[in-house]
Amino acid sequence: MSDGYAPSSRSEAVQLDADDPLLEFRDRFILPEGIVYLDGNSLGPPMHGTIARVNEVLEGEWGAHLVESWTRHDWIDLPERVADAIAGLIGAGADEIAVADSTSVNIFKLLGAALRLRPGRRTILSEKGNFGTDLYIAQGLANLLGNGTTLRMVGRSEIASALDDTVAVLMLTHVDFRTGERHDMQELTAAVHGAGALVLWDLAHSAGAMPVDLTGNEADLAVGCGYKYLNGGPGAPAFAFVARRHHPRLNSPLWGWMGHDAPFEFDSAYRPAGGVGRLRVGTPPILSLVALECGVAGVSEIGVERLRAKSVALTECFINLVERDCREYDLEIVTPRESHLRGSQVSLRHPDGYPIMQALRAAGVIGDFRVPDLLRFGFAPAYVRFVDVWDSVSALREIMGSERWKDAAFQKPSKVT
Amino acid sequence: MSDGYAPSSRSEAVQLDADDPLLEFRDRFILPEGIVYLDGNSLGPPMHGTIARVNEVLEGEWGAHLVESWTRHDWIDLPERVADAIAGLIGAGADEIAVADSTSVNIFKLLGAALRLRPGRRTILSEKGNFGTDLYIAQGLANLLGNGTTLRMVGRSEIASALDDTVAVLMLTHVDFRTGERHDMQELTAAVHGAGALVLWDLAHSAGAMPVDLTGNEADLAVGCGYKYLNGGPGAPAFAFVARRHHPRLNSPLWGWMGHDAPFEFDSAYRPAGGVGRLRVGTPPILSLVALECGVAGVSEIGVERLRAKSVALTECFINLVERDCREYDLEIVTPRESHLRGSQVSLRHPDGYPIMQALRAAGVIGDFRVPDLLRFGFAPAYVRFVDVWDSVSALREIMGSERWKDAAFQKPSKVT
Repeated sequence: MSDGYAPSSRSEAVQLDADDPLLEFRDRFILPEGIVYLDGNSLGPPMHGTIARVNEVLEGEWGAHLVESWTRHDWIDLPERVADAIAGLIGAGADEIAVADSTSVNIFKLLGAALRLRPGRRTILSEKGNFGTDLYIAQGLANLLGNGTTLRMVGRSEIASALDDTVAVLMLTHVDFRTGERHDMQELTAAVHGAGALVLWDLAHSAGAMPVDLTGNEADLAVGCGYKYLNGGPGAPAFAFVARRHHPRLNSPLWGWMGHDAPFEFDSAYRPAGGVGRLRVGTPPILSLVALECGVAGVSEIGVERLRAKSVALTECFINLVERDCREYDLEIVTPRESHLRGSQVSLRHPDGYPIMQALRAAGVIGDFRVPDLLRFGFAPAYVRFVDVWDSVSALREIMGSERWKDAAFQKPSKVT
Repeated sequence: MSDGYAPSSRSEAVQLDADDPLLEFRDRFILPEGIVYLDGNSLGPPMHGTIARVNEVLEGEWGAHLVESWTRHDWIDLPERVADAIAGLIGAGADEIAVADSTSVNIFKLLGAALRLRPGRRTILSEKGNFGTDLYIAQGLANLLGNGTTLRMVGRSEIASALDDTVAVLMLTHVDFRTGERHDMQELTAAVHGAGALVLWDLAHSAGAMPVDLTGNEADLAVGCGYKYLNGGPGAPAFAFVARRHHPRLNSPLWGWMGHDAPFEFDSAYRPAGGVGRLRVGTPPILSLVALECGVAGVSEIGVERLRAKSVALTECFINLVERDCREYDLEIVTPRESHLRGSQVSLRHPDGYPIMQALRAAGVIGDFRVPDLLRFGFAPAYVRFVDVWDSVSALREIMGSERWKDAAFQKPSKVT
């Protein structure tokens, strides 16, 4: 698909799908009839195999063998198996990834570890507008330490110049959750290292949607989310990455029994497991982990290079159609036009973004709204089709043209997810 | 059942079950044929309703309505609904319980909060032999703070005298995971308060097996586990309790977006949700939470008073049968004979505890082994029968008498769960 290209008819979009080698994978996902799902960047759908596998665990493992399943069905090593699969998606070694807890809790572990890897430096540097939990966790850690550790937030263009010798760690979200803008991992990681600091990448909107090369870019630390492009289910466990060179001095603040070198010896003294094993804390949530394992296997089978190629084509197509077919409406495309600067979502700005998104959802196009004025559309390349792009822009054009979003039913704010 | 009583035949045990009003509840649990399951203190079994409900969530919610399920199926309030149900089991207000993360992570939150509620005091007091993760989390927090905070571990009989004015918080497990011995919550909580400190109770082996009265005993803080007597499934989410009087100054070290007063406003500054709401951190794991909700509903319906009455009868019966029928073997009963001093398990000590438990498991009696020499038998009163008690002691007697545990097959140590 060349720059500026957009299908001229729905049937042309259908033909693009027919020619798409990834179309066959869509059938593995459970997607309701009549819905265009463009919110896989918030919650990916289940796969048919996920439901079958969760039931196998419920009945054939937990129900059939109870506590003995920890060894008989190897639940105890399930986090490592999932870590191994995730490692292949983000350019990491299997021994550099731990699957445990939530993204938030993993950020706490890695920020705590980062401060100990750079003693004397007490600034956590981040970006204004970074995702809430990343900033809050840093603030909570600083508040706990009470030793002058502070979170400093600067604008996107000021990051490089803010890297002074007080900075222990730069924490950034690789792909911005609002705008879909992508940071240059290689350039920023190099800048961070030039300043003697570490970098912590939040891959929530990257993992499973595009190739990430943590090793090639010499990243230090990373976290990521299991329930977006990895399709692990609502509240799926998250992952944490620590580059091998930092393992010898890795000290997570959460010393849990599952991160002990010998959990079942019940020593009174903590003795950390080797490497990222010490990032495990409590007993792993098996039902959620098996769902994540299925989701990760799904994207792994397609492969991140192919996923990225399709993602670029889908977002390009969406941008071009919006520019061509919705140009008379006050919709600002805030996501970069250059594909290498964006992730797998496109965000549009409109002062009435909230009711417009409500009207779109009522029409069967599921994107989401982010305060104060952003309409987000996620293009999860494993199951979104070109015809979905066509239909979503058609629905948007119809809603804008008819001003149907002004209906009273779409105005009232409620919990936004 | 009177003190010292034990059935004189298997049919007498069967008759005890026939007279037991709780027998009807057993059918709700999935328990393999031919197995005596005495390890519900490690992992409770699934209920039939749990499997049905998880599938409803997989297909009818996640699969059918995707991200909209957060509001449409009220996933967003699921942690609070489960908290409400757990509160009723442990004498707490619904607004005093948060359901989130693992027991380990919750201990971290509450120890961090306790130290801030008692500024200037830097001792975390606990018991030698407390469960591993409780001790490790305290050590990790002390290591992180680096301000002189220390974990002090004393023997059971030295706890009261160790409560000096350096102690910020006493952390105890209500029912000991090795011996089944129970602390006097009322007496110890009063002693702690007399010393100006706080108490943190770990209810891992209490919740769902017996009444606990956190409010009546004026407990400050508590945590508990979802996958033992609450039957929430492997690695189920855990809970945390904070007495209402501490809410105004409650400061958990884990400031996550789900604990923000307005998570979807994405402010750059953390503003804690009211009360225990601030103990939420990341996105809740819905699949694991619905399983926990089902498990909690199961024990709630039976009621903790009835569960405790049956638990006392079962453990009494087991102790009496072991004393009567296994007296010629070198099996020491380490769990207190007085029912008010024990929880819902009985532990036996034998230098060859490991191969004996392996032989019991091979014979279909599932208890577990704890280093160095303990055989643990958990009597989850919701589904364990008197005939199970009879059969387990018969199997034990047979294995001891035949010395079958000396078989080579039972000797080799492997991962113990």
